[in-house]
Amino acid sequence: MSKILVLGGDGFCGWPTSLYLSSQGHQVEIVDNLSRRKIDVELGVDSLTPIQAVDKRLAAWKEVSGKTIGFHNLTVGEDYDRLLQLIQSFEPDAIVHFAEQRAAPYSMKSAQHKRYTVSNNLNATNDVCAAIVESGRDIHLVHLGTMGVYGYGTSGMKIPEGYLEVTIEQDGKTSKSEILYPANPGSIYHMTKTQDALFFHFYNKNDKLRITDLHQGIVWGTQTDETALDDRLINRFDYDGDYGTVLNRFLMQSAVNYPLTVHGTGGQTRAFIHIKDTCRCVELAIKNAPAHGERVMIMNQMTETHRVNDLAKMIADLTGTEIAYLPNPRNEAAENELHVMNDNFLALGLNPTRLAEGLVSEITEIAEKYATRCDMSRIRSYPTGQPLRKRMRSQNSSELPELAGVAGCC
Amino acid sequence: MSKILVLGGDGFCGWPTSLYLSSQGHQVEIVDNLSRRKIDVELGVDSLTPIQAVDKRLAAWKEVSGKTIGFHNLTVGEDYDRLLQLIQSFEPDAIVHFAEQRAAPYSMKSAQHKRYTVSNNLNATNDVCAAIVESGRDIHLVHLGTMGVYGYGTSGMKIPEGYLEVTIEQDGKTSKSEILYPANPGSIYHMTKTQDALFFHFYNKNDKLRITDLHQGIVWGTQTDETALDDRLINRFDYDGDYGTVLNRFLMQSAVNYPLTVHGTGGQTRAFIHIKDTCRCVELAIKNAPAHGERVMIMNQMTETHRVNDLAKMIADLTGTEIAYLPNPRNEAAENELHVMNDNFLALGLNPTRLAEGLVSEITEIAEKYATRCDMSRIRSYPTGQPLRKRMRSQNSSELPELAGVAGCC
Repeated sequence: MSKILVLGGDGFCGWPTSLYLSSQGHQVEIVDNLSRRKIDVELGVDSLTPIQAVDKRLAAWKEVSGKTIGFHNLTVGEDYDRLLQLIQSFEPDAIVHFAEQRAAPYSMKSAQHKRYTVSNNLNATNDVCAAIVESGRDIHLVHLGTMGVYGYGTSGMKIPEGYLEVTIEQDGKTSKSEILYPANPGSIYHMTKTQDALFFHFYNKNDKLRITDLHQGIVWGTQTDETALDDRLINRFDYDGDYGTVLNRFLMQSAVNYPLTVHGTGGQTRAFIHIKDTCRCVELAIKNAPAHGERVMIMNQMTETHRVNDLAKMIADLTGTEIAYLPNPRNEAAENELHVMNDNFLALGLNPTRLAEGLVSEITEIAEKYATRCDMSRIRSYPTGQPLRKRMRSQNSSELPELAGVAGCC
Repeated sequence: MSKILVLGGDGFCGWPTSLYLSSQGHQVEIVDNLSRRKIDVELGVDSLTPIQAVDKRLAAWKEVSGKTIGFHNLTVGEDYDRLLQLIQSFEPDAIVHFAEQRAAPYSMKSAQHKRYTVSNNLNATNDVCAAIVESGRDIHLVHLGTMGVYGYGTSGMKIPEGYLEVTIEQDGKTSKSEILYPANPGSIYHMTKTQDALFFHFYNKNDKLRITDLHQGIVWGTQTDETALDDRLINRFDYDGDYGTVLNRFLMQSAVNYPLTVHGTGGQTRAFIHIKDTCRCVELAIKNAPAHGERVMIMNQMTETHRVNDLAKMIADLTGTEIAYLPNPRNEAAENELHVMNDNFLALGLNPTRLAEGLVSEITEIAEKYATRCDMSRIRSYPTGQPLRKRMRSQNSSELPELAGVAGCC
């Protein structure tokens, strides 16, 4: 059993991870400033699922499991002294760092959103590292990164787990070197994660911090065994244009009878992981900390890859929804291969939840069950007001009105 | 003639660069929040040279040259709206970005100094980039970076100008790729500069920003032709443990009759550039902006390399001062080679000021001239109060009291 501090423990990944770690017998405390809920307010959107206030959630968990999770409302990256005091009093063995703004489209909305994402994410990571150093304690830092740091389009190369061996030739001399995989971020959000990697490299080298950086794929799924125990524990489901991922967009479109909108040929391959596996991977990472003096451990946290078009087809087959092909607003190759190495987690015993297994319950128990809570303005109605699918057939698909969820996330 | 906005134009590099650009007929406006002067207050130190308040400096420049330089007291990285308004009203062709905390030892003093350096430097660079994008103007950004991003100890390799061609082998396939030179920063300050490189990479790729990143060596020298025109224009000279470079430390030690303290064998090689050449390089960079659509232009801004021990000997020969060898507090190889490519600036016509030429005036016109202003508490007196050199001969040199200037800065 470990003492674990979860930064950002009220969010989409943080909440189920906190419950899972608690269920496994760890002593868990959550730090969160509720920024994700406040961004919902800013955007005028809401989780499709009726998530409860933090205190209600935590009381329900206590009631259901008998376990207590502490909660601290503070801003990582600003309230440094309180964070340091918490580390000194709670004495965690591990800190799981989810406390970053995590939507690529949100990070690109305006200069102010770029500025918020940069300041929030970079100051948060630096504060955590500096506080661990100042505390003098031997704490393992587990950070949620993204596979997006690699950029898309790696010309058929296998994406290794963080490091790349290269050969350098100069003046007739040849040398080999293992370097951090060169970063190629596609948004301000992704860029902050590539800058996080440099924080980790530095604090590991200079202060011998033990750090695991998890390069996560697109997370799908809503519920875990723990969040499903009680309605009040339900996890969030985002389908808006900023925080909704491509899969959630498809799920909502099918639930409200709108064609599944695929951009370009849908030939872009993406990496996926179920939220249950996120929780398991984090615990596996905690249990398998790098040794003292070891470099930053980087693992690809994903379990399968799919072309966007294949995803759409999968949902279309299950629900009978049509697919509409739209121009791709992203500046990216129309088709790409994606070969990701995830040997580390498989070796540690991860037994993945596959899309093909979990998709049906996602449709029936989330998207369709809560469809009445759907804000249809986020899935813009077709101008004429005619039934969408009917109109679709007579239109050039490129004239389909743009959904809010165009850019997708992560 | 260009319109040039100089961010950090009151600092050690920014001030003489602003005057030089003004003297060359450019229209110059300075942005500065006087943070460098406030840090002097925090540290209880002062420039050896009697620098004047900004308004006095600018009035003197107007009197001497007939040219007006505008001044705007705002914090780049915080006062975003004012920065954007200034860009929109002044309509600069180029922005020179010196507005970062630039001392490695200062950045490492405490958690609060780490936090200040990270937040100040990263938010500043992001704000400048975001403001240029939001302004919609075609502005060339020239950033002062550091050769320190490469780390020391490059195993005899020539340091290229920013990019490195590597060969990647995987599954029997071989591919060549040109990547950003892998970063290996040695301090929080240097780390922020490696993170700056990722800002530039992203904004160049995503928004087509034209950017030149100057990887500068250790700047030496105090005066330029412009700052020497009038006493009120004098540039700053730092010799404290945070902001004083190794060369300034030697100069002050010789001026106040203290042995030149060399750490380890003094076999570490460093790259240098005279402040006059900094000014010239910045103008050359402005005049030779990357074309639209071109990647970030990275140039090594240095003119010669010296071993620390050779520097000490050079000053010892000129002044008759002794050299004392102390244990090296830095975690670095005792000896290193440093081969730096600076073909770009030489090709652009830079005619460097060499150390061997400029050192005598630095000794007589700065260090000795202002020695009475020296705060001896920054050059700690030996406990017994005996004359330093006399005591030194009878002591094991490793027992020499540590000077404040141990870590040096670049």
